Order: sequence, then C-alpha cells, then structure tokens
Amino acid sequence: GVDKKILVIPGDGIGQEVTAWGQKVLETIAVNYKHNFVFEEGIMGHVAIEATGTPLPDETLEKARKSDAILFGAIGHAKYDNDPTLKVRPEQGLLKIRKELGLYANLRPIKLFDELLEASSIKPEILRGADILFFRELTGDVYFGEKKRSEDRNTASDLMIYHRYEVERIARKAYEAARSRRKKLCSVDKANVLESSRLWREVVQELAKEYSDVETEHMFIDNAAMQLVKDPKRFDVVLTANLFGDILTDEASQIAGSMGMLASASIGDSVGFYEPIHGSAHDIAGKGIANPLASILSAALMLDISFGLKNESLRVIKAVEATLKQGYRTMDIANKHTENHYVMGTDAMGAKVLENLN
Amino acid sequence: GVDKKILVIPGDGIGQEVTAWGQKVLETIAVNYKHNFVFEEGIMGHVAIEATGTPLPDETLEKARKSDAILFGAIGHAKYDNDPTLKVRPEQGLLKIRKELGLYANLRPIKLFDELLEASSIKPEILRGADILFFRELTGDVYFGEKKRSEDRNTASDLMIYHRYEVERIARKAYEAARSRRKKLCSVDKANVLESSRLWREVVQELAKEYSDVETEHMFIDNAAMQLVKDPKRFDVVLTANLFGDILTDEASQIAGSMGMLASASIGDSVGFYEPIHGSAHDIAGKGIANPLASILSAALMLDISFGLKNESLRVIKAVEATLKQGYRTMDIANKHTENHYVMGTDAMGAKVLENLN
Ligand SMILES: CC(C)[C@H](C(=O)O)[C@@H](O)C(=O)O
Ligand SMILES: CC(C)[C@H](C(=O)O)[C@@H](O)C(=O)O
Repeated sequence: GVDKKILVIPGDGIGQEVTAWGQKVLETIAVNYKHNFVFEEGIMGHVAIEATGTPLPDETLEKARKSDAILFGAIGHAKYDNDPTLKVRPEQGLLKIRKELGLYANLRPIKLFDELLEASSIKPEILRGADILFFRELTGDVYFGEKKRSEDRNTASDLMIYHRYEVERIARKAYEAARSRRKKLCSVDKANVLESSRLWREVVQELAKEYSDVETEHMFIDNAAMQLVKDPKRFDVVLTANLFGDILTDEASQIAGSMGMLASASIGDSVGFYEPIHGSAHDIAGKGIANPLASILSAALMLDISFGLKNESLRVIKAVEATLKQGYRTMDIANKHTENHYVMGTDAMGAKVLENLN
Repeated sequence: GVDKKILVIPGDGIGQEVTAWGQKVLETIAVNYKHNFVFEEGIMGHVAIEATGTPLPDETLEKARKSDAILFGAIGHAKYDNDPTLKVRPEQGLLKIRKELGLYANLRPIKLFDELLEASSIKPEILRGADILFFRELTGDVYFGEKKRSEDRNTASDLMIYHRYEVERIARKAYEAARSRRKKLCSVDKANVLESSRLWREVVQELAKEYSDVETEHMFIDNAAMQLVKDPKRFDVVLTANLFGDILTDEASQIAGSMGMLASASIGDSVGFYEPIHGSAHDIAGKGIANPLASILSAALMLDISFGLKNESLRVIKAVEATLKQGYRTMDIANKHTENHYVMGTDAMGAKVLENLN
C-alpha cells in the first residue's frame, strides 16, 4: 500500500455536504486496498472569511503545500454575489490557492454514463459516444491580470494577458493527452479579435508541428460554444484559456447529464487539486439534496492522476456506474419519465456508492 | 410610402450569397407596399482589403453615415485565421464600423419556428416556447480595450474595460424591451472574478430599482452557458457584455435550430445595422448552399426597427414561415428523419420566400 497525506477543503455551500462523501470513498478504498491515507482538514472561502477574515488563511495554504493531494468542495456565497462592492471575497481564496500551488492545468473530462442518456436536455442520438477531455488553463488570463477601478468608480478593467510559456506548458499537456486518446486536439480562442488569442494560436500552431501525429483544429470560442451543443462527438481533447474554459466546461456539463456529475483535476508544479465543477449552489445548500457523485468522481481522479492508482480509480467509477444502474438518483439526474428510479438525497446516494465499493 | 436609403454590404464568404436575398426581399416589399427604397453597395472585410488595402474604406463609412439603414452579410477569411501574425484583418472593418456608427446595442432575438422543432440537437420539449431577446453590448469590453504585444512577442494582452455610461445605456434599452415582453431581465456577468463585471452588476442593480416592474436576475456567465441548454425557457430578455454576448448568442443558435436562421440588429446613436449572426463560413462559401433566411430575417428586423414598418416586417416573417411549412429547407435545417422535406440551395430557397411574399 501507499502512504498519502490528503487535505480536505469542503469550502462553502453544498461543498460541505458532498465533500464528506468524496472523503468517505477515499477512506473505503484505503481500507480495501490496504493504503494509508491520512486526512487533514482546511478552511477556505466564505467560511474562512467568517472565521479568520481572509478567504485563504496561511494555515490552509501551508497544509496544502505539505499534502500529496487536495480534495476541494466549492466556493461562493450569495452575500458577495449580491454586493459587488465588497472587497474581501470567497473566490479570491480559490484563485490564490490555484496560483500559489502552480495549478496551471485544469482537466475536465466530460463523459456520459449510459444510464444518464435521458437526463440531458440534448437528444440521446447527439450525445451517445461523446467523450471530451478539456484542458483549461488555470493560472493566467483575465482572471489574474491587473484589475483596476477608477477613483470615481465609473470605470473598471481587467487585463486579459498571456505569456508564451503559459500557453506552451498547458498545450503540451493537452497534446500528450491527445496522443493517448483519439489523437485530435481542438484549440479554442478568439484570434479574430483578441491579441492574447493570437499569441495563443501562434504557440499552438508551433506545437502542432511537433505533435504532427495529432490532428490540430483551431476554433473561435463563439463557434465552439455552438458546436458543443450541436455535435459534441466531434471533440476529443479541447484546449483553451481560463475564461473560455470556465464557460465551455459548464456548458458541456449538459453533455454529461448534469453538473452534479462532473469532476476536475488541477495539476501543475507538484500537488494535485481535485474538485467538482459545480459551485456552492446556495439555493440548495443545507437541504441534503446535492449530488455527491462529482465529489466522488473527483476522488477517483485523485487516485488515478496524483497517486497512480488506476485500479482503485476504476473501482470507484464502476461503483458509481453500478449505483446508477440500480436506479438510484439524486434530484438533478432523475428523469420523471423513467420508471424504477429511486430519487434520494446526498447521504443516501453516497451510502449506495459505498455499498457498491465493497 | 416611405423614402429610405439602404446601404448593402455583402462582405466576405457566404455574405455575398445570402445578402442578395435580403435585398431582394426589401425590393419586393418596396414594390408591394409602394415604398421607395434606394440601394447602394459598399465593401468591407477581406474583399475590401483585396481591393483597397483596408478592411473599411472611408468611402464605405461615408455611405454608411448617409444611409437610413445598413444590410450587412458576413466577415472573415481563412487566410487570416491561419496566420495570426497578419496586421491588417477583415474583422477590424466590422469592429470599426460598429464603433464609428455608435452601434452599442446588438439585439439578437432567438425564437424557434415551430417547423424547425426537430432540427435542433436539443429535445423538442425543452425548446417548445423558448423566446429570448439578447441585448449584447457592442462597442466596449475586451473587443475595444487596448491591445498590446511585447517587443519580444512573448506577451500579449487585451484590456477588458467598461465605463458606467456604457453599461447604463444598453441596460436601459434592455429594460425597456423587457417591459413590452414578459418583464424578466437576466443580466449575465462574471462578477465573482472580474472588476469590470462588478461595475456591470452595480449599474444593473441600480437600474433594477428604477425598473421595479421588471424582475431582475443576475447570473454568472458559466452558469448562463449551462442554463441556456438546460432550460432556455427560463429566459426572457438577456443583457450582457460584448464578449459574453458573442459566445452566448452563438450557443443560443441551437435553440433556433440553426445559426442560419438568426438575424440581428445593431442600434445606437442613429443608423441601424442589420446582419445575420452567422459568419462568412469559408467551408461552404461559393457552393450556393448557405441558408438565406438569416439575411431575409435581418431585412425584416430593419423594416420593423429602423423604418417602423411593422406590417411589412411581419409579412416577411410570415413568408419565411410559409416557406418552412411547405417543407422547403436548406441543408443546415433539413431533418433527414422527416418526409416531405425538399432540400435546396440558397437561390431556390430565396426564390420560394419571394413567391410567398406575393
Ligand atoms: C468560483 C469561480 C471563481 C470558479 C472559476 O471561475 O474558475 C468556478 O466557476 C470554476 O469553474 O472553478
Ligand atoms: C466576426 C466577429 C468579429 C464578430 C464578433 O465577435 O463580434 C462575430 O462573431 C459576431 O458575433 O458578430
């Protein structure tokens, strides 16, 4: 067995409810496969602001640096969404930890479980077989460029900026992944309007020569947002910038039936960071109805990518699949037109997955 | 009858093929309703670069200023897409004319013709009844903020910037429109990350008090990109910035069955500018298979918004509807599972609409 230190950061809203199940799955895997996983907990986001005045306390960052992998929940709170003038904001914690840990590559695999073919608003025949791996750049772009507000508060700006090395390192990771998949890479930008996108396209064009065994396509973001709904099967690996990736991957959640199904891995310099794509969802927080599968699948990604435990990772995915096959559903993936569906809350659903792990 | 001067700018690619039909429809309406429409032609985009070295010749801009309305086709060419280092680019022409004419409000109505319910990749029960009016800001944002490239060419940036008055004037237009519709406005931003979005949200929050008869909702762009596919019916008027609007409206084209169906109106200080949402589509340009309906529906928008000719506008829309009912389809909206569909090219389709106008 392996020895690993895992930092758990539940964060805000439904993060608290779902992350518990990602952790329980890791604990069960540790027992079943005789690994030694040691868990610590850290705070971040609105809960950290309430407790310490800052969205990412130094203590959490220190624990993060010392861990082998991080399981994160979600961030954000209605209070800040409703008051854009607040200076200290939960999301700053997430952005800061991404930057500090050098998590420049955000991997978002989009794959539909057959059982959920009917849960999407998109037609089954359009979805069947869709399998996309997004590489979203995560530590650059307009997220991290200088932000300004004029003294009279009437003008506000954010700098959308990219450096060549930032594009190159994520593009390489995406090309490497494409090689072990269907050998197709689609780079998404807005090079017909943006200078930062023109740099992006130049860099990818250069790398395309080096990875000539991979078929490279360039697509404008507006077209990509359309093609993703129109014909998701045309995509294999999609490579894109931080902001465009944020938008496209949320949109792509409909390909997987629900946002509540999607996990992500953020990697880079050293430690890996695993989180559901969904947010804190204040509207349903505390109700015990959130889907725990995205957190559980994030744990599966951790086992595979950070720990190299492919069998264990696959075991978790199979347990999720089995649970869906048995007809168990949280609200977001329930289909009212299907019989033999048992709609349940977060904890009941999590418990079913655990049963299927044993 | 009314006297109007209309400038026609076919532009690049399929713009040449489809705009001819928008114009023919306007000519037919003029005859039938005894109006006097005088047409001039202008060049812009790649064709203008080839002819004059610049994407927007002064002569075209002069003609535009003197006209009562402009019917535009599309812009862009593969040559520039493939070479991001080229300095003079077709799209600069479109951006410049938008800025010079003060076309700050881009209206993009998204409504499905019943006949096309099956043409979309989204399930009919999700689409039925969807009716969205987008207000996309068109002369600000990262489109027009300063663009920079470092001397070593390794760093590139675009400034995402908004001024209060820019947000306010488009928000007012959107609120006014919401009042005459279902009284719901959704403002889309990324205020949890971007300072320019926080200004955007502040301004909309202030206006929301003034328009308290309209229900205001704020949504993050990533969530909006998802909700648009998941549940398009939840939207009435959507208000958003230039870049986000570019992305969302292309995505929303799937709600209308095809990009080839969508028209847009750009308005502001004086003259109105009408164009399909689709681009120059080099892959099908010159083949005579492009859908002319978006250009024809752009002409209908012109009749309504710039000339106040509501009956004439409705007449055009009815002719399009009748053509679809008769089973005539261009390739992009043909459904291979439906019988009694006659798939035809641009000119045959345009001619059918003209027949239905008489
Ligand atoms: C919460 C927010 C800052 C974040 C982002 O925009 O990156 C989220 O939407 C995500 O995709 O992880
Ligand atoms: C051609 C391009 C510059 C343009 C834009 O991005 O505004 C187009 O996509 C549009 O939506 O009108």
